[in-house]
Amino acid sequence: MEGKMKVAVMTGIGQMKFEEREIPKAKDNEVLVKLEYVGICGSDLHYYETGAIGDYVVKPPFVLGHEPGGIVIEIGKNVKDLKVGDRVALEPGKTCGHCEFCKTGRYNLCPDVEFFATPPIDGVFQEYVAHDASLCFKLPDNVSTMEGALIEPLAVGFHAAMQGNAKSGQIAVVMGAGCIGLVTMMALKAMGISKVYVVDIMEKRLQKASELGAHAIINGSKKDTVEEIMKLTNGKGCDLVIETAGTQTTTIQAMHMTKKDATIVLVGYSKTGEMTLPMSLALDKELTFKTVFRYRHIYPMAIDAVAAGKVNLKGIVTNIFTLDEAQKAMDYSVNNKADIVKAVIRISEGK
Amino acid sequence: MEGKMKVAVMTGIGQMKFEEREIPKAKDNEVLVKLEYVGICGSDLHYYETGAIGDYVVKPPFVLGHEPGGIVIEIGKNVKDLKVGDRVALEPGKTCGHCEFCKTGRYNLCPDVEFFATPPIDGVFQEYVAHDASLCFKLPDNVSTMEGALIEPLAVGFHAAMQGNAKSGQIAVVMGAGCIGLVTMMALKAMGISKVYVVDIMEKRLQKASELGAHAIINGSKKDTVEEIMKLTNGKGCDLVIETAGTQTTTIQAMHMTKKDATIVLVGYSKTGEMTLPMSLALDKELTFKTVFRYRHIYPMAIDAVAAGKVNLKGIVTNIFTLDEAQKAMDYSVNNKADIVKAVIRISEGK
Amino acid sequence: MEGKMKVAVMTGIGQMKFEEREIPKAKDNEVLVKLEYVGICGSDLHYYETGAIGDYVVKPPFVLGHEPGGIVIEIGKNVKDLKVGDRVALEPGKTCGHCEFCKTGRYNLCPDVEFFATPPIDGVFQEYVAHDASLCFKLPDNVSTMEGALIEPLAVGFHAAMQGNAKSGQIAVVMGAGCIGLVTMMALKAMGISKVYVVDIMEKRLQKASELGAHAIINGSKKDTVEEIMKLTNGKGCDLVIETAGTQTTTIQAMHMTKKDATIVLVGYSKTGEMTLPMSLALDKELTFKTVFRYRHIYPMAIDAVAAGKVNLKGIVTNIFTLDEAQKAMDYSVNNKADIVKAVIRISEGK
Amino acid sequence: MEGKMKVAVMTGIGQMKFEEREIPKAKDNEVLVKLEYVGICGSDLHYYETGAIGDYVVKPPFVLGHEPGGIVIEIGKNVKDLKVGDRVALEPGKTCGHCEFCKTGRYNLCPDVEFFATPPIDGVFQEYVAHDASLCFKLPDNVSTMEGALIEPLAVGFHAAMQGNAKSGQIAVVMGAGCIGLVTMMALKAMGISKVYVVDIMEKRLQKASELGAHAIINGSKKDTVEEIMKLTNGKGCDLVIETAGTQTTTIQAMHMTKKDATIVLVGYSKTGEMTLPMSLALDKELTFKTVFRYRHIYPMAIDAVAAGKVNLKGIVTNIFTLDEAQKAMDYSVNNKADIVKAVIRISEGK
Repeated sequence: MEGKMKVAVMTGIGQMKFEEREIPKAKDNEVLVKLEYVGICGSDLHYYETGAIGDYVVKPPFVLGHEPGGIVIEIGKNVKDLKVGDRVALEPGKTCGHCEFCKTGRYNLCPDVEFFATPPIDGVFQEYVAHDASLCFKLPDNVSTMEGALIEPLAVGFHAAMQGNAKSGQIAVVMGAGCIGLVTMMALKAMGISKVYVVDIMEKRLQKASELGAHAIINGSKKDTVEEIMKLTNGKGCDLVIETAGTQTTTIQAMHMTKKDATIVLVGYSKTGEMTLPMSLALDKELTFKTVFRYRHIYPMAIDAVAAGKVNLKGIVTNIFTLDEAQKAMDYSVNNKADIVKAVIRISEGK
Repeated sequence: MEGKMKVAVMTGIGQMKFEEREIPKAKDNEVLVKLEYVGICGSDLHYYETGAIGDYVVKPPFVLGHEPGGIVIEIGKNVKDLKVGDRVALEPGKTCGHCEFCKTGRYNLCPDVEFFATPPIDGVFQEYVAHDASLCFKLPDNVSTMEGALIEPLAVGFHAAMQGNAKSGQIAVVMGAGCIGLVTMMALKAMGISKVYVVDIMEKRLQKASELGAHAIINGSKKDTVEEIMKLTNGKGCDLVIETAGTQTTTIQAMHMTKKDATIVLVGYSKTGEMTLPMSLALDKELTFKTVFRYRHIYPMAIDAVAAGKVNLKGIVTNIFTLDEAQKAMDYSVNNKADIVKAVIRISEGK
Repeated sequence: MEGKMKVAVMTGIGQMKFEEREIPKAKDNEVLVKLEYVGICGSDLHYYETGAIGDYVVKPPFVLGHEPGGIVIEIGKNVKDLKVGDRVALEPGKTCGHCEFCKTGRYNLCPDVEFFATPPIDGVFQEYVAHDASLCFKLPDNVSTMEGALIEPLAVGFHAAMQGNAKSGQIAVVMGAGCIGLVTMMALKAMGISKVYVVDIMEKRLQKASELGAHAIINGSKKDTVEEIMKLTNGKGCDLVIETAGTQTTTIQAMHMTKKDATIVLVGYSKTGEMTLPMSLALDKELTFKTVFRYRHIYPMAIDAVAAGKVNLKGIVTNIFTLDEAQKAMDYSVNNKADIVKAVIRISEGK
Repeated sequence: MEGKMKVAVMTGIGQMKFEEREIPKAKDNEVLVKLEYVGICGSDLHYYETGAIGDYVVKPPFVLGHEPGGIVIEIGKNVKDLKVGDRVALEPGKTCGHCEFCKTGRYNLCPDVEFFATPPIDGVFQEYVAHDASLCFKLPDNVSTMEGALIEPLAVGFHAAMQGNAKSGQIAVVMGAGCIGLVTMMALKAMGISKVYVVDIMEKRLQKASELGAHAIINGSKKDTVEEIMKLTNGKGCDLVIETAGTQTTTIQAMHMTKKDATIVLVGYSKTGEMTLPMSLALDKELTFKTVFRYRHIYPMAIDAVAAGKVNLKGIVTNIFTLDEAQKAMDYSVNNKADIVKAVIRISEGK
């Protein structure tokens, strides 16, 4: 398809503009996707507010957005598993395929990954994108492209649950009820975990967790979190904690609320990058700490879980903006973090 | 509690009588349980019909029955986790605790296990039993003692699923829709498996599988089973097969219907004990075969799954007899195998 | 490098000729390797004798040989980890990199693999080959290119040991003392297995096993194999059996000589493709069967083990032929299977 | 055996006296062991110097020592696997056998364990001890009772390596070259690890590490540890770090010297119990932290490794005292920590 497309571009800290760019061409192994929805992630907001995350520094003009869902409108000549009209979720990271990590199936750790909206690779706050067919996952009829966009954060939740080796019969606690905490809670439930308890300090988020299926919620600003978990588990402690809040306090609480030999999965980044932790307690309890960097091999199972009605992705969306409202979407999101669970940008009408 | 109790005793092949025996006393680590329901297992029928299973030979008088549920009416002096009035499911095997298998947590393989109704250990077609408190698992309010009795076969299903390393996102096939096939199908669903397909040759059983939640059913006497699974999986094959039918035919089909690197879990015993299998195919596909002998560490998770409404145990019960009808229960079960999914004996009224 | 090279070509069953072909060019990601040694594998002999293995049918002219070691003489422009003069072992299978199996690190199961000397892909009984740099593993100074060639069969042995989850403290039995049996025995020892016992029916092979470090050898034609293993294990049985003989008899013996919950790894293909096995015994003991198809991620660890002196690869070589003797090498190998452990073809002088 | 025995008793901080006590009787499942050697552990020294470790407080009179080796001189009537005259290593912790942790094979986490020399349970600086036969492991002829005593610290090393899922082909680093660091290094080598590098700041300890088989040693007070490991691994980093030094500095170094997806096993307790760690780095690299509390299921494999000559336990002993010198042994050990790798008390002559 020839022609121009509208692209929302970050031109500086706190600044969005629109550009016209060429609609990309699908290479032989690629498909061209007309985007319908792109989610706004916390990392997008962080780049927008500060211009960088760690060593990744935005050099404007830069395109944000790495949670896309859309519809295939052209296919490259070698593409066999997709056809025009297929609605798809796009996994945002293209990896090298031959490094030690790719070869052993741990492609999320590929040092040469090209990931949407991680500098210097542009994201997808735009109308079209050409992407590797093997990274575009067809959505079943009962999964919308908005849900397709949100497979990306859900994949983090599933990967966290997988890293924690979550399994049927366990009791799990999710620290933090932001977007990632909520999708993690739903992923744990989809994987057959018996009970999932969610901890946060904002009542509104906890209500959302409850609506979406948390077996119990704890407001850490009002109650002693560890004590509450101990009550809920008859004094035994939980099997698994997934920490998405990224604070030292919640990480220490996690260490106290588990059984011996439990696993704590760290997902949330702390502000300073450091935490002071009671490591001797970890040894006494023979705890395991796993960590999460993006995800691998999750899209098919996450899509399945949504299609089967096990995960209510629509339920996390609190705000929908249009592409024309990109600046407003970003500004509003930055200024209303406490109220927003998940904002998405509707790029085109879709269905 | 002092006094006598009624015991249904197998006095010979195809013969049941009643005896009065002393109500047992709970030792320090035991509880005395008034039994409310005991399931009838295929192995009970086999002992009843033939007098033996492999090297295990019945010497009458012998008490059958190893799937008990009841209510605690006395507790030994060292028992802390149970109290009078608790309704419980009883795990039927008492193990030595210090052999290589017990020490490493694989207690189902303990060579010195004493298992209800495995000769020479008597079973529990009787009014009371004293049993180790650590083998009596308290039922939540919303789980009945009839369901408690059926935790035993469900445990086989969960153990099969665990042996198969079943996980979210997979497609599984269960060969055979008898009692064990059905509980395995429900266990797989409870563990988050995306799709479970069930194969049998009896339409009635397949209808039951469908009612209880199978995503698709295949009548192997009418259709080409492997071809059907290939259709259902877009030609890819399934990730996991759990074989409960115990036939060479279904085991060979299992080998053909899987993806490479898939796992086949063997649960069903074949009549002759032998199978002729295309092992070169196994190597070409790098298949794994796991097997199942009873279960370990399953009762709590199985009870949880029933309590959470993930497994419909009541749905498998097709016939209820009273203890007084013990002979009828056995004879009817032997003569109507095709029609019965699961028969249970109601020992006392219960709730 | 421009010019012609000598290639030994199979022109029909039992017929070898020589051809001159163009020396291949290294593509950007490839290196050009001057071959020094190529091992002769049982599969080469099978193609030579019968023209086919299963569905893989030789269409002459066809080049056999998939166990190459050599020296890098040119590098493609994108190659960074190798340089001219490096001596290398070549992993013979080039995989697609984006199928389900490649993405998850199980590349040995890639359906689109191009594997040296598996029809229709030519092998390497020739002077030069251009090969993906990522499949060429640099040899340390103390590992020769002849050993480099033999990393290929050793990789099968290590993969078998890995599939069996071999670990320190276990007792393992290797059924069969041919090339694969011997390298498996050495791989198990390198992985820290406490005791490895080797079974065969040919005394000469057993003597070789003993020389190369088997802790005990058993001649199955003279003694009751299962009884001997029981004696050696104080009646407990072994933890792991790796079956390389490919017979029903040895597979059944394996099932009898293990402990409960043991693993049997099937490596050897049986002549008919089928085996009749006592599967009920497998269930009673809750055995696991793993299988082996080639290997994955093994070359670096196998080279390390040879460099560290843990595996004596030179010790398995019984016959060395030159490239000019290709026909003789094949004929002699076919006619003296009992006497040959491993034959190799020296392609060029090397060091 | 009737009579009195000599017991070295801690009567207060820094005070040892001798008492005469009755020689204990072996219960039905026990054996009576005449002790020949008991190792002195850092925890013994800590109790001796300070009177407590965490919540465990010595109430004098208290017997230290939990690393015993000796000879069986009487057996209880139910003991089958041991006989008078057997030389044994004694695993010091007796567990309950029926808690959640015991049942699942993780007995080292049993909350009701009775462990020699952990208050209020007496240790074994004495002439005889009666102990569960299942905790007494027979030594092969070529393993001395002094080595038998040292199986205890070696078990910590093997458990650390097992927790780290150490396997053939990996590169591991051990932080700290004290007794536990050295046995860990040897355990890793016995498990087939390709390369083990040892880091310490005391040259004498590093020399010992080198003598005992470390592939390289790094003096962290003279060189940049992380840089050195990067050089040794061609810039790739290591696969596994086992941290036995118990300092924040070495733990942070561990996080920097690994590859992505590596495992760090924490064995050493820090002085304050806390560490401030760059947890965001852990997430970026998707690191796993495992921890170690004693060990489980290790004695047989550790004894095997010593018998096979893979672990040189004699090589770590730097000081031997007699039982009569108990006070001197403790005082000298406290005052010469830098010079002592491992001190043992010879209780009786032995062989």
